[in-house]
Amino acid sequence: MDTRKIPQEAIIRLGYYLRALNYLFRADKKVVSSRSIAAFLKTNPHQLRKDLSYFGQFGKKGVGYDVEQLIGSIRDILGINKTWYACIVGFGNLAKALSFYQGFNQQGIVIRVGFDVSAKKINKRFGPVQVYPLNKMKAVIKREGIKIGIITVPEEAAQDVADRLVASGIKAILNFAPFKLNLPHQVIVKDVELAGQLFYLTYNLKLLET
Amino acid sequence: MDTRKIPQEAIIRLGYYLRALNYLFRADKKVVSSRSIAAFLKTNPHQLRKDLSYFGQFGKKGVGYDVEQLIGSIRDILGINKTWYACIVGFGNLAKALSFYQGFNQQGIVIRVGFDVSAKKINKRFGPVQVYPLNKMKAVIKREGIKIGIITVPEEAAQDVADRLVASGIKAILNFAPFKLNLPHQVIVKDVELAGQLFYLTYNLKLLET
Repeated sequence: MDTRKIPQEAIIRLGYYLRALNYLFRADKKVVSSRSIAAFLKTNPHQLRKDLSYFGQFGKKGVGYDVEQLIGSIRDILGINKTWYACIVGFGNLAKALSFYQGFNQQGIVIRVGFDVSAKKINKRFGPVQVYPLNKMKAVIKREGIKIGIITVPEEAAQDVADRLVASGIKAILNFAPFKLNLPHQVIVKDVELAGQLFYLTYNLKLLET
Repeated sequence: MDTRKIPQEAIIRLGYYLRALNYLFRADKKVVSSRSIAAFLKTNPHQLRKDLSYFGQFGKKGVGYDVEQLIGSIRDILGINKTWYACIVGFGNLAKALSFYQGFNQQGIVIRVGFDVSAKKINKRFGPVQVYPLNKMKAVIKREGIKIGIITVPEEAAQDVADRLVASGIKAILNFAPFKLNLPHQVIVKDVELAGQLFYLTYNLKLLET
């Protein structure tokens, strides 16, 4: 497969399909059609078939997809058939929320340590996460086998923290700070736009009112 | 314009363009090309032009976009040229993080009240947000002019809470619970998939390693 041609959005949508499939699996469905997965997600089956087609041939025409098998295939594609360790930098409310967030652990992503500058947080444990000072970052990341950095610091600290993560060997960053990071192009960065999610609501509310 | 033909993703992307434009505006840029906005976001200018074309004619060929004017137009389109009031149900760490999140207020979305079942939280104030018991929902939502409900309760409570929001007159819901809500089709629901954001990283990390 030529991975250059796969749109980012298709990867994100695979995650949605996985969630739907996990739900259908728990509801004891063995075989499902693209239409029933799409109906569950209120999306269209054509998009789903196209997204899957980037990665190979799944399911049988006229029969559908084996739920358990497709879950396995998507987990393979997304690289979550193994456990990934992550760290969080900036241990405020959002970091605490993410540390306890079941949705990550269920998908093989474990937040293992945190980093902060505050003496109130350093060397404390919040649920499963031990918090260290920033100057221990490189050593801790190496020792704990951490591959993913999650940034939850304020906007003005985000670039410095991202530089430190990269200097510590991190190649993938999830950025919650509303700031466009400037990093070497080989570093994989995903910005989480929480406000953007709300715009979908305001846009449609406005249409309702007019 | 025929709003039925506008893809959801285009609305979400308008939010990204707005963020880029706000940043360029603060950096004192007056006029920008689609290429420079796209470069800022590491996306492609063709997509940007196509997304904007759903909503009208912006910018001048060979000249570019007036930054301030385009910010105004996108805010109009997204319906955020006015203030929207929101409530949060389930006042844990995530709710606290969102209550203090600058990114919402800056975009005209104000979280005004919270609801919870815990006596430790009810009738307390967290930053700008006053927390009420669930049975006050309908009265408080009406009194405060709240139009958006944000759900941050655990999975098993999400449907009940969503039903209560709808019964209280809420027509737009941002859902952080990893659960597919079953609601009347006229209710606008946006699910926030935090784990899905991480899949983009694990997918690309896997490609790096192979």
